[in-house]
Amino acid sequence: MMHLNLLRLGACRVPSRLMSTKSTSVEINDKTGVAILSMCRPPVNSQNVQFLRDLKSSIYEIENNKSRGLILTSANSNVFSAGLDILEMYNADKEQLGTLWTELQNVWIALYGSGLPTAAAINGHAPAGGCLLATACEYRAMLPNCVIGLNETQLGIIAPKWLMSGYQNILPQRLAERALTQGRLFTTEEALKAGLIDEIVNSKEEALEKCLNFIGTFAKVNPLARSLTKLQFRAANIKEFEKIRQKDVEDFVSLASRPEVQKVMGDYLENLKKKSKK
Amino acid sequence: MMHLNLLRLGACRVPSRLMSTKSTSVEINDKTGVAILSMCRPPVNSQNVQFLRDLKSSIYEIENNKSRGLILTSANSNVFSAGLDILEMYNADKEQLGTLWTELQNVWIALYGSGLPTAAAINGHAPAGGCLLATACEYRAMLPNCVIGLNETQLGIIAPKWLMSGYQNILPQRLAERALTQGRLFTTEEALKAGLIDEIVNSKEEALEKCLNFIGTFAKVNPLARSLTKLQFRAANIKEFEKIRQKDVEDFVSLASRPEVQKVMGDYLENLKKKSKK
Amino acid sequence: MMHLNLLRLGACRVPSRLMSTKSTSVEINDKTGVAILSMCRPPVNSQNVQFLRDLKSSIYEIENNKSRGLILTSANSNVFSAGLDILEMYNADKEQLGTLWTELQNVWIALYGSGLPTAAAINGHAPAGGCLLATACEYRAMLPNCVIGLNETQLGIIAPKWLMSGYQNILPQRLAERALTQGRLFTTEEALKAGLIDEIVNSKEEALEKCLNFIGTFAKVNPLARSLTKLQFRAANIKEFEKIRQKDVEDFVSLASRPEVQKVMGDYLENLKKKSKK
Repeated sequence: MMHLNLLRLGACRVPSRLMSTKSTSVEINDKTGVAILSMCRPPVNSQNVQFLRDLKSSIYEIENNKSRGLILTSANSNVFSAGLDILEMYNADKEQLGTLWTELQNVWIALYGSGLPTAAAINGHAPAGGCLLATACEYRAMLPNCVIGLNETQLGIIAPKWLMSGYQNILPQRLAERALTQGRLFTTEEALKAGLIDEIVNSKEEALEKCLNFIGTFAKVNPLARSLTKLQFRAANIKEFEKIRQKDVEDFVSLASRPEVQKVMGDYLENLKKKSKK
Repeated sequence: MMHLNLLRLGACRVPSRLMSTKSTSVEINDKTGVAILSMCRPPVNSQNVQFLRDLKSSIYEIENNKSRGLILTSANSNVFSAGLDILEMYNADKEQLGTLWTELQNVWIALYGSGLPTAAAINGHAPAGGCLLATACEYRAMLPNCVIGLNETQLGIIAPKWLMSGYQNILPQRLAERALTQGRLFTTEEALKAGLIDEIVNSKEEALEKCLNFIGTFAKVNPLARSLTKLQFRAANIKEFEKIRQKDVEDFVSLASRPEVQKVMGDYLENLKKKSKK
Repeated sequence: MMHLNLLRLGACRVPSRLMSTKSTSVEINDKTGVAILSMCRPPVNSQNVQFLRDLKSSIYEIENNKSRGLILTSANSNVFSAGLDILEMYNADKEQLGTLWTELQNVWIALYGSGLPTAAAINGHAPAGGCLLATACEYRAMLPNCVIGLNETQLGIIAPKWLMSGYQNILPQRLAERALTQGRLFTTEEALKAGLIDEIVNSKEEALEKCLNFIGTFAKVNPLARSLTKLQFRAANIKEFEKIRQKDVEDFVSLASRPEVQKVMGDYLENLKKKSKK
């Protein structure tokens, strides 16, 4: 509770603000030393190249600023992040597709490979790329009545190996394989039961409090030893990723360029347009 | 329920039969597109070279026939499969032993590496090679009062690395190591608790229904994306297998040729003969 | 019960004693064939070079003596083992530090790589190096009101990869990463819930009985097949260890030589002195 009060004071009066970007805002509380990184690309934090670059910059800035921890959350209510922005994938040329995927990789490695304690305050839906961000963190608190999951197969695409590794760190192998092949979206309650999230919370405030408490469990731990231990734990996945990084971009570009996949995207966008006209 | 009704209609009236073999029969239902592969080498589906070749052919035929899924079950009541046929191992020369093991490998890789959704309707005991077939699938429903497990150490032999990997995908590491070293046979109830099977069912019919339901969870999933996701998940084990494939045959031949192992087989067969005379 | 009675008889009347060392004692019961290896370096079995060498010798002696199993326990009440002896790390030169770490590696590989069934009767606290010994075994029974865990990050050092692998064989990945980064010490009850131990027992006697029962589960198993299966299961971790073995010593020496780490040790020893004067 103490922690949260400090946070509130910090946020309302004298937050030490870091440079925020167009689609992210960062607040570091002077007392706790913990940074809250808010994604704010309305309405659903869909991930285009600019958004991903902003996110990456903010993560590295927090890391370099010697923060005590990083909490990732959304400034938009109802959605944590809806994943890749289809507008930047539809009718895009190969270079654009390659850039988009490369920036997604960059964000993942920045967050998954961060030496800081990381936690996700999941205050809304987190499908696909949203789940990617949440599972790259070390801890997850989530609001009820939302969904989270790597639902790529439902969209006709494939969660790459490095993304799967986030799942495999968290879920039992059997559950991970099944969820990935089914493209399963877990409800908040199902996610807790499976171990995909750590806590169900009733408000964004409570989510932030739980994340702060998690980061607080490292209070007596040597930060360098902690960081090296975390990276040692994740090293095999990171090394594997580095090896296939370039090929992974090519695979995505090739898949996303296929006429049948483009058609799915076009139909999807058409559908959205119709809905918004109603 | 809908699914099962379709299946029944299909099975009773107009099943589109694929080429069946001496020891397997295959039915594909026109409505569901799901293939039921029945092992029928009475009395216990013991795995000799011919049986394994038949099984392999049927698996590939189902795969190539663009089925929507594969359900493996037994035409014999009480036993799913009793594992390798000791009659083909006792007094066998090295070439015969090598052929037997190679065909076992072939069946495993055909089933474990299948891009189709695979499910096992385990309507009887599934020790050793029977467990191998069941754990190579993605889902398992099993009748009560049966046993399942890799009990190789009880027989004085060793479950090879590639076979262990099936266990490691399903069980927690700690449980897997213990069960493998103990050569443990799980009762149906123990298997459910450990996660080795997914459901306990009260009849073969119900087992088939549950398997169909599992395959139905992929109804809205792009089959190609699903297949690639599954294979990506299993790729490390498959690659590892391919590397040691030949050496693994040699290891088995060398072990199974040892006089003390041959003696265990001889005693076992003698015992069976005595029992059947009573 | 039978087993325990045999054990008691053995221990009290005609134990077939193996060569004991300065800091270990070994008893093999003629009836069960199981060896009890007791650590006895009062007051807390802190691990200096001599203790580690004695432990290593005893493990190999038990292995070579064709024992049916190995139970590791402490002759000191209240502490299983307190981990590395800081007196041999404080103001030590690089050669001494390197020797200490090498002997710790040697004990781990002797125990983790033992073909025998191994069990830990944890009759007291087991932090750091004490936890290392316990998790290298296949089974753990522990007294209540004790703690166990790899708390290295709390001490400003890092649990090496090979030590982490013991945790990863036992705990779910998510729990393992969190516990390692937090340097968490589990209470007996927490350890049971997490799967870090297998049983809570009310006395050292009961701990030994449970360990004997565990080893008894291999009674009908071929010892050679068991041993090869265990080693095949652990082979990847052992191979990984052998590759980094030398670098791992250098990393430890470099870390432990740092003035700030030496200072932590000095302060710690100063504190102990003050406490003992009171």
